[in-house]
Amino acid sequence: MKKVRIALLGLGNVGKGVWNILKSNREAIAQRSGYDIEIAKILVRDVNKDRGVVVPKELLTTSAEEIFNDDSIKIIVEVMGGMEPTKEYVLEAIRKNKNVVTANKMLIATHGKEIFKAVEEQGVSINFEASVAGGIPIINGINESLTANKIEEVAGIINGTTNYILTKMTLEGMGFEDALKEAQEKGYAEADPTSDVEGYDAVYKLAILATLAFETEVDIDDIYVEGITKIKAIDIEYAKEMGYVIKLLAIAKEVDEKLELRVHPTMIPLIHPLANVNDSFNSIFIKGNAVGDLMLYGRGAGELPTGSAVVGDIISVLRSEREGSNISFSHYIHKQVSSMDDVKAEYYLRISVKDFPGVLGKIATILGKNEVSILSFIQKPTKKEFSTIVIVTHKTLEGNVNKSLKEIKELQEVNKIENVIRIENLD
Amino acid sequence: MKKVRIALLGLGNVGKGVWNILKSNREAIAQRSGYDIEIAKILVRDVNKDRGVVVPKELLTTSAEEIFNDDSIKIIVEVMGGMEPTKEYVLEAIRKNKNVVTANKMLIATHGKEIFKAVEEQGVSINFEASVAGGIPIINGINESLTANKIEEVAGIINGTTNYILTKMTLEGMGFEDALKEAQEKGYAEADPTSDVEGYDAVYKLAILATLAFETEVDIDDIYVEGITKIKAIDIEYAKEMGYVIKLLAIAKEVDEKLELRVHPTMIPLIHPLANVNDSFNSIFIKGNAVGDLMLYGRGAGELPTGSAVVGDIISVLRSEREGSNISFSHYIHKQVSSMDDVKAEYYLRISVKDFPGVLGKIATILGKNEVSILSFIQKPTKKEFSTIVIVTHKTLEGNVNKSLKEIKELQEVNKIENVIRIENLD
Repeated sequence: MKKVRIALLGLGNVGKGVWNILKSNREAIAQRSGYDIEIAKILVRDVNKDRGVVVPKELLTTSAEEIFNDDSIKIIVEVMGGMEPTKEYVLEAIRKNKNVVTANKMLIATHGKEIFKAVEEQGVSINFEASVAGGIPIINGINESLTANKIEEVAGIINGTTNYILTKMTLEGMGFEDALKEAQEKGYAEADPTSDVEGYDAVYKLAILATLAFETEVDIDDIYVEGITKIKAIDIEYAKEMGYVIKLLAIAKEVDEKLELRVHPTMIPLIHPLANVNDSFNSIFIKGNAVGDLMLYGRGAGELPTGSAVVGDIISVLRSEREGSNISFSHYIHKQVSSMDDVKAEYYLRISVKDFPGVLGKIATILGKNEVSILSFIQKPTKKEFSTIVIVTHKTLEGNVNKSLKEIKELQEVNKIENVIRIENLD
Repeated sequence: MKKVRIALLGLGNVGKGVWNILKSNREAIAQRSGYDIEIAKILVRDVNKDRGVVVPKELLTTSAEEIFNDDSIKIIVEVMGGMEPTKEYVLEAIRKNKNVVTANKMLIATHGKEIFKAVEEQGVSINFEASVAGGIPIINGINESLTANKIEEVAGIINGTTNYILTKMTLEGMGFEDALKEAQEKGYAEADPTSDVEGYDAVYKLAILATLAFETEVDIDDIYVEGITKIKAIDIEYAKEMGYVIKLLAIAKEVDEKLELRVHPTMIPLIHPLANVNDSFNSIFIKGNAVGDLMLYGRGAGELPTGSAVVGDIISVLRSEREGSNISFSHYIHKQVSSMDDVKAEYYLRISVKDFPGVLGKIATILGKNEVSILSFIQKPTKKEFSTIVIVTHKTLEGNVNKSLKEIKELQEVNKIENVIRIENLD
């Protein structure tokens, strides 16, 4: 059997997953790839650190140059994460004519264009299945399986931490803080959870998905982002009452030749398959003009699921006898991104009002004047100083909702706009 | 741009889907494949039939030879279905050095081995994504994305007709006959629904999935099959009461180096993602030793979804610059198939009994003697001559259940074993 030598950059969780999969499934992987894969070198910062995995010490090196200058190494597997010095390493590997497999969402989301250009010029390949949604083969799905389609929409639950928190809040009635604490205890959330709970992690992943699905260049700064910290138990209750569940969705959608790119808490119908994606699971829903509705569901993180995607990419490089990549990025064009004011959705408005007669009439009048029509509203009797009005609008322009809310806030009967949550029926 | 000429065998629903997709998404497909795809010839039985699609008449031919002898045609797209003369056509196309894309589940399930051998010898490729679950990229998923994994289990809802019927029975309380009638009216069921409702259609698809997932040769006669006609409204009610939903599952599972291969109505937990796959949707759940739980969901049939898979295969042939297939089938070995007596599941037993005291004790004694332990039972007061006992067993050998039922049937207090349904927790 032919042999191939590869190198890992990094031996953290994903690196260990790759190591373990290549060991435990070695024979099957050899049959499928046609190669006996040898991990020849592993770049680490400290060769003496205990990593909880038995790796021969002579494979470890702190010298990236040693790896790049070894012509016998054909594939570089970048699982060290981060941007510096990772970006330079990846570009150097490409210049040294090596195929690259990476799990790095930040790198691809922010420097994809430069990296894609480099691989095409050099005639090598870049694979990054693991960069979005761990073990779920969504990159391959878009790049290889759905090629017959014009993709119209991608909507994904692509952050396991926030999905875990929202699931606990929804199914067990936990508050945000308690759910976050539990997520941290279980290792689903970092000590500093900002990147997850504020939606930034999902932004990187959405940038990659939208780039591929719409064959366009995406600037992460063009993606609207709103995290889940403002979601209260009462919003989850109202959602349930109206037949919805709240998920942090990452949405990319082509409307009138412009792209909507947005990450925010979203009410989706309880009967939609995405609504039942719970705990730390990820799921991506795609609408194609031929395939119709499609959904992929699985583990979005973890040593082995992410390792599964990385090793799948390695095998795919080995199977392809052509030089370079199957996929060309060079025809990608820049598509215009919609302003959030031009986004159309239904809106859930939770407004705290002083219980004056006529307040609902005044609010309704403002909405009507701004062409926002009301689908339903709920006002429950209350004994407190303020009572709560919940309004759900028909599908309408976000700009009109914002204009209305500005006016509503000025009403003397209104205490506070407590929350505004977009509703997507995904139909 | 390079041009490529392809031919369709057949212009039924799937053929029309392929035609329409290649027209409407032409530009995007050209960019992705690198080729301007020309449908050069279409084999039909009657060139004058109105097919509800505008195809230039000069493309239609009744002569298969004309197509096979045209050396400018590189890809044959078999969408005529059936076995005769389809099998001979496909083998002839391979001999004439053409790559083949097919949507034909029966052909691949029953003659896959011969066809795979022929393509490997000839150095051409065979692609058959559309043969299982329409637009869902499950073949590609197994063959290309999950290659890092040892797959442990595949469990799929892969027949849209029966899923539609069971959904109507479950969510709307319809009887089997009414649900079938509605499925027929909506075009989800054939006038003769036997192949769907008796599970045979799912058997072909499972044979293909198991072949690929376990890299083995599967004889369709080795697949146990049970249709949904015996499912009564009362079973669905009891299932619901116990937290289950009934689905026709196609299961392939490796246990102790033997394969379980079976298609039968199955109770699955309401909270499992497969439980919420409704109407005519298909979904396939896979457990891999690296990726963990994965599920793919989408349209299992229909002109455009199936066409999406066929056209995706065509693009994949065009992108691959290597001769022949990426996938080798030659290392597939024959794995032993478990006898149903050796299958382990939980069992739902619905037994109609004469309301004598002590009957439950006698049944429980027989089960205990045969090492079948009881997880729960339900007996409701009744005013009829017979009352119903529902027993759910712990996970146990099917052989022991069958032995028990044989003895239980002989009890004078027992009127009838009304139904036996396997329960799978898929955990």
